Amino acid sequence: MNAFQPRTDDMNFILFEVLQAPAQLQALPVHAEADAALMQQVVEEAGKFVAEVIAPLNREGDEIGAQWKAGAVTMPPGFRDAYQAFWQAGWPSLACAAEDGGQGLPAALEAMLYEMLSAANHGWTMAPGLLHGAYECIKHHASPELKARYLEKVATGEWLATMCLTEPHAGSDLGLVRTKAVPLADGRYALSGTKIFISGGEHDLTDNIVHLVLARLPDSPPGPKGLSLFLVPKFYEDGSRSAVVCERIEEKMGLHGSPTCVMRFDEAPGWIVGEPGKGLNAMFVMMNAARLHVGLQGIGLLDAAWQKADAYSKERRQMRAPGGSAKAGEADLIEQHPAMRRILDAQRAWIDAGRVVAYRTALELDILKNHGDATRRELASRWCSLVTPVLKSAWTDQAFHGASACLQVFGGHGFVREWGIEQIVRDSRVAMIYEGTNEIQAIDLLLRKTLPDGGAALLQLLADIGGELGDDAQAVRVKAQFARFTSFLRERLLPRATAKDAPADLAHWLADDFLRAVAMLLMAWAWARIGATTGGYAPRWQATQTGFWRWVWPEFDMRLAMLDASLDAA
Amino acid sequence: MNAFQPRTDDMNFILFEVLQAPAQLQALPVHAEADAALMQQVVEEAGKFVAEVIAPLNREGDEIGAQWKAGAVTMPPGFRDAYQAFWQAGWPSLACAAEDGGQGLPAALEAMLYEMLSAANHGWTMAPGLLHGAYECIKHHASPELKARYLEKVATGEWLATMCLTEPHAGSDLGLVRTKAVPLADGRYALSGTKIFISGGEHDLTDNIVHLVLARLPDSPPGPKGLSLFLVPKFYEDGSRSAVVCERIEEKMGLHGSPTCVMRFDEAPGWIVGEPGKGLNAMFVMMNAARLHVGLQGIGLLDAAWQKADAYSKERRQMRAPGGSAKAGEADLIEQHPAMRRILDAQRAWIDAGRVVAYRTALELDILKNHGDATRRELASRWCSLVTPVLKSAWTDQAFHGASACLQVFGGHGFVREWGIEQIVRDSRVAMIYEGTNEIQAIDLLLRKTLPDGGAALLQLLADIGGELGDDAQAVRVKAQFARFTSFLRERLLPRATAKDAPADLAHWLADDFLRAVAMLLMAWAWARIGATTGGYAPRWQATQTGFWRWVWPEFDMRLAMLDASLDAA
Repeated sequence: MNAFQPRTDDMNFILFEVLQAPAQLQALPVHAEADAALMQQVVEEAGKFVAEVIAPLNREGDEIGAQWKAGAVTMPPGFRDAYQAFWQAGWPSLACAAEDGGQGLPAALEAMLYEMLSAANHGWTMAPGLLHGAYECIKHHASPELKARYLEKVATGEWLATMCLTEPHAGSDLGLVRTKAVPLADGRYALSGTKIFISGGEHDLTDNIVHLVLARLPDSPPGPKGLSLFLVPKFYEDGSRSAVVCERIEEKMGLHGSPTCVMRFDEAPGWIVGEPGKGLNAMFVMMNAARLHVGLQGIGLLDAAWQKADAYSKERRQMRAPGGSAKAGEADLIEQHPAMRRILDAQRAWIDAGRVVAYRTALELDILKNHGDATRRELASRWCSLVTPVLKSAWTDQAFHGASACLQVFGGHGFVREWGIEQIVRDSRVAMIYEGTNEIQAIDLLLRKTLPDGGAALLQLLADIGGELGDDAQAVRVKAQFARFTSFLRERLLPRATAKDAPADLAHWLADDFLRAVAMLLMAWAWARIGATTGGYAPRWQATQTGFWRWVWPEFDMRLAMLDASLDAA
Repeated sequence: MNAFQPRTDDMNFILFEVLQAPAQLQALPVHAEADAALMQQVVEEAGKFVAEVIAPLNREGDEIGAQWKAGAVTMPPGFRDAYQAFWQAGWPSLACAAEDGGQGLPAALEAMLYEMLSAANHGWTMAPGLLHGAYECIKHHASPELKARYLEKVATGEWLATMCLTEPHAGSDLGLVRTKAVPLADGRYALSGTKIFISGGEHDLTDNIVHLVLARLPDSPPGPKGLSLFLVPKFYEDGSRSAVVCERIEEKMGLHGSPTCVMRFDEAPGWIVGEPGKGLNAMFVMMNAARLHVGLQGIGLLDAAWQKADAYSKERRQMRAPGGSAKAGEADLIEQHPAMRRILDAQRAWIDAGRVVAYRTALELDILKNHGDATRRELASRWCSLVTPVLKSAWTDQAFHGASACLQVFGGHGFVREWGIEQIVRDSRVAMIYEGTNEIQAIDLLLRKTLPDGGAALLQLLADIGGELGDDAQAVRVKAQFARFTSFLRERLLPRATAKDAPADLAHWLADDFLRAVAMLLMAWAWARIGATTGGYAPRWQATQTGFWRWVWPEFDMRLAMLDASLDAA
């Protein structure tokens, strides 16, 4: 089994040629120096680090896994050294502000770094993956005193961080969180409660761990408005250890390189982050970035699976293919069989389009934060708000299902651990669940972000990005489908779903199909952008584009038919 | 985690009410005594044995797994005792002929037994699952002398058996097999070669193991016509051990309770089974039965996953559901959430329809073997030939994807081993590969069984089974879809795909979508049969039938669109 090798040429093509990232970014004063040469150099260095240091640890990460003993967690061989090299080289702080010890580079570079890391070693990547939300959280909500103590350590990644949200009885609905925070005389709070599914709650990668904990102050109202956010470190500055214990780690289907911890807080002193009762707000500001990162995990894992299957299909022979070139008594290469070609081209179509959508989201996050023009920021805000749940849901779904399709290319060998493809199937499954299940993403898109404004933002987004397309045949085709969906929304879905007499559950029945239909439109748009860039297509992109329209796109009409059936049934 | 409990009432409803199995079977003299009372008694006893003896071993089967040491394989705890109890109770020989030591009961009962066994413990079930093909093979092809030695031992299951086909360079294409069989002076043959992916090649369940081995005689022609079949036991009658060694077992994604062996034959003496050069024929006679059994594994595993998810959804609460009944500050049951309801109903629709299709296939196998009327046998032959690849492919595909959907019902807990749902996802994946990959099933259906006769057999089958439907609304709807597909075949697909100038690879591009379209038609037909039986539907069947039409059936039009696109592209 070969370790993952990033193919930065494919990634660069999307970022620099299709999305013209440097031109977009250099319009922002803060990124005036982010020219193509600088950015490409960062991508190449990241690719090298990922290939040489992180990817080789992936298999032992799965087979040995994180080990729990008496409250301590030992990470798999090499994980600590790799992490120490990672933060000391400055990778965690790539996109952090210079004043916090970071390098102030665009989010798009961080996105590409994390896509490659996830592809190479999903388990290892979980640890630094949680840093960025914690950094934003502390930066924007902590008191100056707390920032002085923790911000730089978290920005640079010298200390890792966790997000302690879920409790045994409170998964998707955080409003039911029961962990208590009782004020102490010194201005701190004593936290007590049990949190589950805490990635990286305990480990030996760093000398300290910073926990961000959702908890409830005494006499706070029930539900989400009674939640506040607290910071509890593993070790205080005097070297004493906090009363936070990792009770056990879960035995999981995959992702064995990342300890999923049950954490018990026994009156552990910590500080409040932000205002009382604003705990969820403090966490939700970073939700788009976190969901973008999970979407990137999906793209990375699918790319890792595809690369394995592609390599195998070019090297192994099996049966005679129609029009194959094998001599009598020999077999053809697996890639020559239509059923296998279809699998490879369809997954590739998802990867390439996924990059267009994900890197664009990263660019829009930078634009949203830094652009001088309010109209442009508004487009960025619409994009991030509407596209992020689609990216998270559709591409993590595809990571699992597409990795399974890639496994099929190996035949019986795919089921054997040796080839490493089954690990990707196992590891990828969790991304459909965490950071908001894929069903919650669909509810977010339709019920929270589309129906309340009568579809205005979504229709405007489609108009905006449809307007980016030219007049080539593919662009015309895509614009026609945008128009079709727009009519369907205006004339059928929106009037019915927002009618006063609409059944309370109607929108819930629509949500999954609605998100998938939007995902298909975004992919079609992405392929139109790629097509306009390559102009007449190089063979590599041409085959994949054909694969998209033949094997992926037909889902769009199926989703419209399902939406129709649900509207009819209501 | 609770062990699997068969729900024989649901199974009985399909076999006895929908398919009217006793009336069908009692028309066959050999099954004149197979009345409903006798058959139901067998089903209940089987269900009891499965629940009490086999299901409780499933988790340790996965976690401890089969262990290899110096050529020997130790099965997981309890596996040997359970197997000894299984064969001594007469379960392996349920459908074997009385003169071979069996009970001569219908194949449909064996089908239900294996569906339950697979649901309860897929790994354990692999061992006896291979017996039936070996029995048929020896019964129909071995010499009287060889039968006298081995037939009863294999029929009763006192000894287990293997099928040694695959070699490192020959997976789906057995024509490339290289294992050699050299004649010995005593009429036997010395077998030499390496076979891979041999399920149950070595174990401690039984005192002897009977290997059926595909090999090549000296000077035999290249390709499949040069292959003959041989029988090599682990132990000869004098107690000496044959030169067959289990070199290692594979580390796999799942199915840890079944050792997947690399077997090396070093001039191991064995007997020829059937005529020289007819080895593949001898194995292919039992292919329909073997593929039916894999389809039943799919149905059983999906049912096991569904039962877990259903139970969890009725017991756990999460968030507020639209129109839910939870009090303020509490959460609703998971089953009340539309996105989860949809998953459960769609999977249930696959299970119920799958049983109609699979049990009917078992009945048709009995009819094919025993019916007095040639016209009826011809319908049976058409059914088995055309439906079996669809059943194998579509329902093993659904076992994996549907089990993953059921995992989603558990949220984060689904990814944790404790609940047992992730094991089903892992175990089920292999059924998409073995016994002919699902892509090979599609090629079998379209290229071998539909195009050569210009679609005559398939069109006749659709006419025959469409004719079984009545005049209720659902039946009319299904017949209209049969008519639509028939026109599509006659007017579009067949003329183009069988045209002299059709590209050599055209049919290969069509095959997967073609099989899925036929699967949808069979499901629609099955639901019409269920609907006609329940008459106005009990709520349980009504909800599932609605689930079928809303969440499953729309794939049919997508497949037609994909077929159209491929025909256009050619």
